[in-house]
Formats: sequence, C-alpha cells, structure tokens
Amino acid sequence: MAPAITLAADKLSAANTGFMLICSALVLIMTPGLAFFYGGMVRVKSTLNMLMMSFISMGIVTILWVLYGFSMAFGTDHGSIIGWESDFVGWTGIDKADIWSGYTIPVFVFAVFQMMFAIITPALISGAIADRVKFTAWSIFVVLWATIVYFPVAHWVWGTGGWAFELGVIDFAGGTAVHINAGAAALGVILVIGKRVGFKKDPMRPHSMPLVMLGAGLLWFGWFGFNAGSWLGNDDGVGPLMFVNTQIATAAAMIAWLAYEKIRHGAFTTLGAASGAVAGLVAITPSGGAVSPMGAIAVGVIAGVACAAAVGLKYKFGYDDSLDVVGVHLVGGVVGSLLIGFFASGKGQSDVEGLFYGGGLDQFWKQCAGVFAVLGYSLVVSAILAFLLDKTIGMRVSEDEEISGIDQAEHAETAYDFSGAGGGAARNAVPAGAGADSKKVDA
Amino acid sequence: MAPAITLAADKLSAANTGFMLICSALVLIMTPGLAFFYGGMVRVKSTLNMLMMSFISMGIVTILWVLYGFSMAFGTDHGSIIGWESDFVGWTGIDKADIWSGYTIPVFVFAVFQMMFAIITPALISGAIADRVKFTAWSIFVVLWATIVYFPVAHWVWGTGGWAFELGVIDFAGGTAVHINAGAAALGVILVIGKRVGFKKDPMRPHSMPLVMLGAGLLWFGWFGFNAGSWLGNDDGVGPLMFVNTQIATAAAMIAWLAYEKIRHGAFTTLGAASGAVAGLVAITPSGGAVSPMGAIAVGVIAGVACAAAVGLKYKFGYDDSLDVVGVHLVGGVVGSLLIGFFASGKGQSDVEGLFYGGGLDQFWKQCAGVFAVLGYSLVVSAILAFLLDKTIGMRVSEDEEISGIDQAEHAETAYDFSGAGGGAARNAVPAGAGADSKKVDA
Amino acid sequence: MAPAITLAADKLSAANTGFMLICSALVLIMTPGLAFFYGGMVRVKSTLNMLMMSFISMGIVTILWVLYGFSMAFGTDHGSIIGWESDFVGWTGIDKADIWSGYTIPVFVFAVFQMMFAIITPALISGAIADRVKFTAWSIFVVLWATIVYFPVAHWVWGTGGWAFELGVIDFAGGTAVHINAGAAALGVILVIGKRVGFKKDPMRPHSMPLVMLGAGLLWFGWFGFNAGSWLGNDDGVGPLMFVNTQIATAAAMIAWLAYEKIRHGAFTTLGAASGAVAGLVAITPSGGAVSPMGAIAVGVIAGVACAAAVGLKYKFGYDDSLDVVGVHLVGGVVGSLLIGFFASGKGQSDVEGLFYGGGLDQFWKQCAGVFAVLGYSLVVSAILAFLLDKTIGMRVSEDEEISGIDQAEHAETAYDFSGAGGGAARNAVPAGAGADSKKVDA
Repeated sequence: MAPAITLAADKLSAANTGFMLICSALVLIMTPGLAFFYGGMVRVKSTLNMLMMSFISMGIVTILWVLYGFSMAFGTDHGSIIGWESDFVGWTGIDKADIWSGYTIPVFVFAVFQMMFAIITPALISGAIADRVKFTAWSIFVVLWATIVYFPVAHWVWGTGGWAFELGVIDFAGGTAVHINAGAAALGVILVIGKRVGFKKDPMRPHSMPLVMLGAGLLWFGWFGFNAGSWLGNDDGVGPLMFVNTQIATAAAMIAWLAYEKIRHGAFTTLGAASGAVAGLVAITPSGGAVSPMGAIAVGVIAGVACAAAVGLKYKFGYDDSLDVVGVHLVGGVVGSLLIGFFASGKGQSDVEGLFYGGGLDQFWKQCAGVFAVLGYSLVVSAILAFLLDKTIGMRVSEDEEISGIDQAEHAETAYDFSGAGGGAARNAVPAGAGADSKKVDA
Repeated sequence: MAPAITLAADKLSAANTGFMLICSALVLIMTPGLAFFYGGMVRVKSTLNMLMMSFISMGIVTILWVLYGFSMAFGTDHGSIIGWESDFVGWTGIDKADIWSGYTIPVFVFAVFQMMFAIITPALISGAIADRVKFTAWSIFVVLWATIVYFPVAHWVWGTGGWAFELGVIDFAGGTAVHINAGAAALGVILVIGKRVGFKKDPMRPHSMPLVMLGAGLLWFGWFGFNAGSWLGNDDGVGPLMFVNTQIATAAAMIAWLAYEKIRHGAFTTLGAASGAVAGLVAITPSGGAVSPMGAIAVGVIAGVACAAAVGLKYKFGYDDSLDVVGVHLVGGVVGSLLIGFFASGKGQSDVEGLFYGGGLDQFWKQCAGVFAVLGYSLVVSAILAFLLDKTIGMRVSEDEEISGIDQAEHAETAYDFSGAGGGAARNAVPAGAGADSKKVDA
Repeated sequence: MAPAITLAADKLSAANTGFMLICSALVLIMTPGLAFFYGGMVRVKSTLNMLMMSFISMGIVTILWVLYGFSMAFGTDHGSIIGWESDFVGWTGIDKADIWSGYTIPVFVFAVFQMMFAIITPALISGAIADRVKFTAWSIFVVLWATIVYFPVAHWVWGTGGWAFELGVIDFAGGTAVHINAGAAALGVILVIGKRVGFKKDPMRPHSMPLVMLGAGLLWFGWFGFNAGSWLGNDDGVGPLMFVNTQIATAAAMIAWLAYEKIRHGAFTTLGAASGAVAGLVAITPSGGAVSPMGAIAVGVIAGVACAAAVGLKYKFGYDDSLDVVGVHLVGGVVGSLLIGFFASGKGQSDVEGLFYGGGLDQFWKQCAGVFAVLGYSLVVSAILAFLLDKTIGMRVSEDEEISGIDQAEHAETAYDFSGAGGGAARNAVPAGAGADSKKVDA
C-alpha cells in the first residue's frame, strides 16, 4: 500500500497554523484541568496522588508519542489496524517545513495537536481508581495502555486506512477514541483491582468543590480547542459549527443533570453542575460536527439525563468507579456517538443524514460498530493489563497506606499544610495544636 | 425596514474566524473566573452558591440565546428598540457557510462570541446578592432579566438600527451594555431584597484570597478576548489598539486603587489589587478603542480612584452591595463611558474627538444619553423583577438558612471538607474532632 | 546610525496579528500562574505577599514599558548597549497602523507582546525573597531593576544593534534575557538581604500543593505563547518547531527530575513534578528554535537533572533561595543556553550547527559570552540595588513581623478565613474556636 502521508513544503496557512497551535495549548491545559476536577473530588489524603496521575501522563505520553506513538497512530496503514512510518520515529524524518497531507498546517502542528489527545486519554482513566493504586504501577500502566490500546484505536478511528475511518464511523473529536476508550478501560481496570476500603460505607465527599469547579472551568475552556481544532483549520464553517454546538450541548446537559438530581435527590448541587457540563462536552465531542444547534440541545439533554442516571449504577452493581469515569465518559461517549445516527443533519461536516433527518439507520449501524469494537477492545485489554500488573508488581497500595492516605505513602507529601501560620490573625486558619503537630511530622 | 442582516456565503477569513473562536473561548472562561473572584470573597458557608449563580448563567443564557436571544439582540430592527429575525430562532435558518454581514466571519462565530457576553452579564449581578437568594429564584431572575433587559439593551447599543447605536454612542465592548447594565441591575435588586443578616456588624472577610486572585487573573486574561475580539477581526490595527489599552488601563487602575487605599486605610491589600484591576478593565471596555495609550493611563487612574472611593458608599448609605458590583461595574462603566467624551483621540476606532482633543462636548452628550438610559432602564426593570419574584416565590432564603449557610440549605453541600484526612501527617490539615463531626453530618 | 525601526502602514497579516494577540494574553496569564506557583509553596502566613509581588509587577512594569521601557529596549540602538526612540516614549508617536519593521504585525502588537516578558521577569525574582521583604521596598526595586537591568539586557539580546544580538548569541525566547537575568538577580539580592528566620531549622513546607500545581499548569499553558510567539508569526515552520520542542523538553525534564528525586530521596513528589516541568520550560526557552525534537528530549533530561541537583546547593552553601529561583531559572537558563552550542541542528531557526552536528564550538563560545555577561551584570547590579535600598528605606520587615506573618504586617490581610462557617455541616472546615478568634481579630 502506498504511504498515507505525503510530505510537501507548500500550502502552509499562517491562519490555520496559528489557530492550531493555540488549540493545542487549549487541549494541553485540559489535563491539569482534569487533575483539579478529579483532585478536588477526592478526600484530602489522596489529592496529590490524583493530581500526579494526570501530570505524569503529560510526561510519559509526550515522550512515547515522539518515539513511536505518532507513527503507530498516523503512520502508513498496515492491515487497517495499525500505522507505521519510519520518518515519524523520534520525529527524525520530519522537517519543520513539511505539511500534513491534504491540509495547510505543518506535520509538527498536527502531531503536537494529536499528542495532547493522547495525553489526556489515559489521564481520564485515573478518576476511576482513586486512592488506591501505586504510582509506579500507574506509570507503567500508562506506558502499556497508550501503546497497546490508545495508539491503535486512534489509528482505527482517525488514521487513513484505519478500519473504522474507512467504514465511515463518525468521531469528530474523540467520542470513541478518547471517551469510550478511557471509560471502558476504567471499567476493565476497576473490575480487576476492586474497591476502595470503605466504599459504600464511609463518607467520601469531595474535599474541595472550588477545585472541582476550577477543573470543570478549565475543561470547558480547553474543550473548545479539542473540538473546534479537530477540523484542522477554518477555511469553511465546520469548525465554527463544532464550536457552537460544544457550547450548546454543554449548557443543555448541565441544566438536564441539575433538573434530574433536583427531582431525584432534592437539590441542585455544584457537583451536579460540573458533572453535567462534562457529560455534555463528552457527548458532543463525536457528534458536534454532524448536528444542528437544536440537535446539540437534544444531544446535551439526553446525555445529561443518561449520565446522571448512570452514575448511580456503581452503587447498585458494586463496582467502585470512584469519580464516575464510566458513568460520564463511557456512557456520555456512547450516547453522543450513537445519537449521530439519529440527529446527523446532513448540513454539518458531511451530507450524512441520521434517522430523524430522513437518512435511515445506515449511519447508526456504523456508529454501533465503532462504539462496541472500541468498547470491547479497550475493556478487555485494559483488564488484562491491570491483571498482569497486579500479579507482578502489584497494583494497589497496602490497606494501611490507603487508610492513612496515599499522598503520604506514595509521594511523601500532603496537599495542604495550614500550620505554618505564626501568631496573630493568621492563626484563624488552623488551631495552634495542628501547627505543633506538623513540626513533629516533619522532623 | 429592510433586514439589517444579509447572509452571504463568501469572504470567510480563516484568520479572523480562528481568532474570534479563540476570543469566544477567552470570554467563556471569564464566567468561571468571575465565579472564583466572587466565590473567594464570600464566607466559606456561601461559597458554592456564589459559584453556582455564575455557572447556571452559562447554562441558562446559552439556551435562551439560541432560542430567541440572538434574534432579539441582533435580528432585524423594529422601532429602534428590539430586533427579530425568524431565521435566528433556534438558529434553524443559519447555515454554517453564512457570513455575518459586513464582516469576514461566519454568523455562528459572531453569534457565539456575543453569546458569551450575554452569559457573563447576569452573572456579574450575582456579586451584589451574596449569601441570601434562593437558587431557584435566581435562576428565574436570570431568564427574565436576560429576556427583558439584556437582549433589548444589547440591541440598542450594538444592533444595526438600535437607537443608541444609530445615535453614535460609543461602547466598544460593553461598558454600557454589560457593566452599567449589570451594575444598575444589582442596585435595583438589592434595594428590593435588602441586606445580609449581620451587614455592618459581623466580619465578612473573604474566605480565600487565592481564589479571588485566581478569578482576577482569569478575568484579566479572558478580557483580552472580550475587548480585542469586539472588533471582529484584525484586518487593521484597531483590535490591537484595544488590546494594548486594556492592559495599560488595568495596570494603571490597579496602582491607583492601591495608592488610594494606602493613603486612606494604611495598607496595600490583595483585595485592592484585584478590585483595582477589575475597575480598570471595566472602564477601558467602552473606551479602549477610542483613546491613546496615554489616554488609557488616564482612564485607568481615574477609574481606579473613583471605584475605590465608591465601594465605601454602601456603608454610608446602607445598601448591601455585597461584593461591590455597583461600586466597580456601575461606577467603572459610567466613568469609562463618559471619559470617551474627553479622551477620544480621533485616531482609534473612528475620527471622533473628545473635548481634550479639540472635539467639543458633542460626544460627551451622546455618551450621557447611552449611559443614563441604560442605567435607568436596568435599575427600574430589575427592581420590578426582583419585587415581583419576591412577592410570588420569594427571593430570600430564611434567616436561619442564611446564618447557618446557604450552601447547605440550597445545594446540600459544603465547599470544603478537610476531615477525610486519615491518620499521620495529613492530620495537620484539620483537627481530629472535625473529622468525627463530619461523619455525623453525612450520616 | 540610522534608526533601527522604520514604520510603514502596509503588510499587516491578520493571521499573525491575531496569533500574536492571543500569545500576548498567554504570556500575561503566566504571571498570575507564577504567583500561584510561588504562593502555594510558601507558608500560609506569607501567601498574599507572594501573590502581590507578582501582581504589582503587572502594574508597575506595564506603565514603565509604555513610558520608556519599550524605547530603551527596542528603540534605535546607541553604542550597542541601549536603545532610544522618542516616538516610543509614552507610545505617543506610534499609530495603530504602523507595522513592526520586517514583520507583519502592528508595532503595538510587538510592543505589548514584549511588555508581557518585561512583566514576568522581575516577578520571577520574587520567589527567592519569600516571607521577608517590605512591599514598598519590593515595588521600588521593581522600578529600578526593570529600568537599569531588564530594559538594557533585553536590548543587548533582542534589539537591533544590541551587542549580543549582533554577535549572534541565540536566545529564542528569553533563556538569557529572562531566566538567567532573573535568576542571577535573585542570587544577588539574597546575598545582600540574608536568610529567612528559621532557615534550615523550621519546617517550611508548601501550604497548598494544589495551588502550586495550578501555577505550574498555567505556566506550562502560557509558555506556549511565550515560546512559539517569539517568532512573531507563522509564515514558516519555526514557531511550530518551537512549540513542539517546548512540550517535549518539559515532559522530559519532569520525568528526569522525578527519576532523580526517586533515586536520591525515595519518592516521586508533586513538587518535583512541578519543578521539573518548569526547569524544562526554562531550558528550552533559548534553545527550542535551534534543536530537533530528539534534541529537545536531551535538553529536557539534562536540565531536569541539573536543576534537581542544583536546588540542594542552597542548603550546602547557606544562601536562602527560598523557592529555588537560582536553582531552576539561573541553572536551567544557563543549561539551555549553552546546550545550543552542542545540539543546534542547523534545521531550525537558522543553519547554525552545534558541536554534535558538525558545527564546532563557535556557537558555544558565543553562547558563553551572552550567558556570562548577563549573569554577571544582573548579579552585580541587583546586589547593589538591594544594598542601596536596604541602607536607605530597608529591605526587610522586622523579625517579629516575619515570624507572625508578612501578610498581616504588610497587607493587613490573611490568605484564608475558614471561620465564617455558621452552624451545621460547614463547621467541618474549622473548629468553632477559630471562628470566635477571628471576630476578635477583626474588631
């Protein structure tokens, strides 16, 4: 087969190049945003471990992506399941003037934009395994999972020659490759490693809702780059449509989630607002280029209600999806991907029409193929990876360490220390006794 | 009258489209920024309610704007006071290829950029009513206020055919339509609903100044999109001039506020730095396209001093403008809008010259017309809306709920829980007693 | 000598202008990011002072830059050591249509982009002097240091006619002018003002690691504007190469620092991850336009290890570089600047090749000239400035104020007040006693 990528030193658009660089920065900030979103939701004793699981992904996946990840995902297709291109190994064969084939931006720009997607996807998984996984085991898991699951799946869905891409599965910005992929992996891992000590018994309330909302805000902000940037330029109105629908579905899902919990639980919670917004962002990610603004409202409402209902399942079935990665990313991703089959308007990224726009169920079945193949592959392989790691180096910290706090056990730090307050007014922040205590601990 | 908006499928500039999408994201992040700015300033027991008043605006106004808000603000003019365009209802008649008439960006891009302005304006009001308003009442207020106040006022000031726009009132990015509008509304509402329990008696210190500064930082950052984006493209140097003046006036106002409070109160406070910066941002918002960089310094200094003086008035006159929405946004907006009449250089967005540049008082009187019409309309209508809501569903939570904390009463949550610390070093964060207490509460 | 700057009203690129405005906003947000990065690392009693040292730089330097800083740095060269251009004084001779000579962006855009660099550089110094410097003394220091050190050094390195620029010293985005400059200044100042009370004795743990990580995230995000924006447009692939290398070196340095501390100290800390990322960002700042992606990995790894080792030196030699400005910014800046001499690939910003690419040591010696001239000048002049200020108005707060907390002493505020919790669940956040205490303080 001929190489899928041809390199050419012309046609660079300064407008699209600049836009895509900014979009790449926007996607980058999503991972710290995710770290705060997750970090605020856990108890104070495991906050730093939660942050570190995201930040280390920014380190590890960046290097893997340069060494071989980009080659595996976007190199020349082999057998519709994997890519490879020796020029992409270590990016040694890419010149700064090379243009991504068929587009107007340098190969480096496409590669770094996609790098940011590869970074956040494993980080998403970490929300399910809060409080209880060794940091070294997590780091190795990230290496393996990126290599064996993410890079191939990205090729299936977005790589020229990838089977799902060629089949016509629509995944504008990662409903399948990112969210279903991460959500299914989360489910696979937690079925292997088990629950937190005290699951369903102890109160496990978020230790800082402002930190959660900061995370949600940064995610919402960065997601515009994630979604609108995925069209790789603004020479037509598709990227803008995606941008608009991103905002609309997110708003609709936030309202829908809040309405659902008000009816079911009697209050509008901040955590519900944040979770609803993320559910909307997830669901519009595959579909926002295909639907109309009114369709985006529908996608958002359906995703908000579906995910709000889904997060309760973990208590029913007894799996400890600690911060609702399955309930929000898997369910939201599935909802968004499948709804394309109904709501595709024919006036967005392509002329594909869904059932409600006279297009029959053709696209729906294609979406099903993409959704369930990725779901199944990621679930099974992730569970196997977790199993192998658990049987070798062990995935979980000891029960004592988990109870006393993984931050101290794994990172030799605690998230906050309000004890160094000195005298005077600052003493408000914490009683004097705690300050004295802190010195002992440090010594 | 002929439609103000003609749709055409040509002239899209990828450069301006990409820029405006990023600017839209920048304006979006201002609302979470505002939430943190306000949320840090209240006591810990009402932090989440403060956050939620901003976040719910992101939900509600987005949907209203799609359904009919954009049509009312930017549809074909009717009688110089309101717009309407059936194609804009639900955005069903807008195609992704349609270009905003007279510009180089898709209609969708203009619509979503303006949507972000419509979102933050009601959110601004919430700072005045901290600690004491039912969340449902606030949500309904947002629906009504956006519909009856914001959408028409935006049409007056920015819509083709709007009376203020046609009169030549200058409001580059929202000094009148956003800040005076929100500040006057805040005054109207608090005159109706009254003071917090303990106003002028209890200490009501900010519970987290780092959260306030995070909000201020995000506002400053996002405001560049708000201001420079309002020129809708960079084919000339007007947007850059606005950008430059935004930075300069903000810096000048921050220094001026700090100097004022050092002289009057003896210390340079962090809260003063944040408030001064916001005062400068507000004042340059209408004027930054009209003045020179040296003029921007003057606008900033005047606004910094004026707003620093104005925030003390609430104690003198006894209205509880809790987080100084009147003192900063109303006063800052008025100062900035009127100073155009003096400092317009004739070398910015137009050749209009203010008094100090040989242009007489013509522009000043026009600015007065815009300022006081919006101020009066918003003040009166907002007070009426609050009155009607108060007489029907009631605006305020009970006194008991207010004292024990609106977060628990309205959202069934508290902002922080440092109790889940486990043993060991993490215990520093909070004494053991509080942890025990927390379990009881949860149970 | 003829003016280095010619003004012309043509050739504006909307694409590059928009990109550079966004990059300017990205660099602006780095200073609040730095404030949080530093503010989280200090004890709770000096958090606000730490924030304020950065925020006041946003105020002061903005105004200085307009008044005469831009003229000194980028005006017509005089004697290869300083610039001056009367049109740039107060920016009164710059029209919005004037284009920066040789580029496609308005003079205003170049001026405001560079302004953001001038703002953050003095702010970087503040990390070294935590807890102990009078706010007024710091403010005066910023005025003097910007004027006597930063503006001239920026001219040397980046100004047409500046001696280092003309010699061919490579400093893509500020390894020399920003990081070595600030790091050397920090060393000069702390050698004069001395250590914190309790240095090497008391525990001085970060009071909020989430705040540190927020700062690190915002720095990483904004740094893309700092680095990629320094090429002033995207008409070729150099800016993208810089962007890509920024991400890669940062990831590599984070991993290298974590590995170093795991081996030396036995744990992967969150503080190490944040510090490693910043070390990588610093080191790639001068070099990222010259090296390949594999070279960026090398630069990152070397910088991560070098800086991780360097931060321990303060305990060995007894200088109190409180938050490791010397260890990270000086050392990282030197490492990155000198490595250009070895790793320049000849395929980046120019055809200059380093030793490992067959280019000999020519460039290395040039880099040495730039590095050590700036290091020596900044170190000596900064120490003299600190000495003069200390002998006149005094640099340090009293020992009592330092022990009881500089926030209360200098800013009449404390960072947090969890006491206003009311009854009920919110009481978790803090014991009732502290609340009572707070009222006394306020009264």
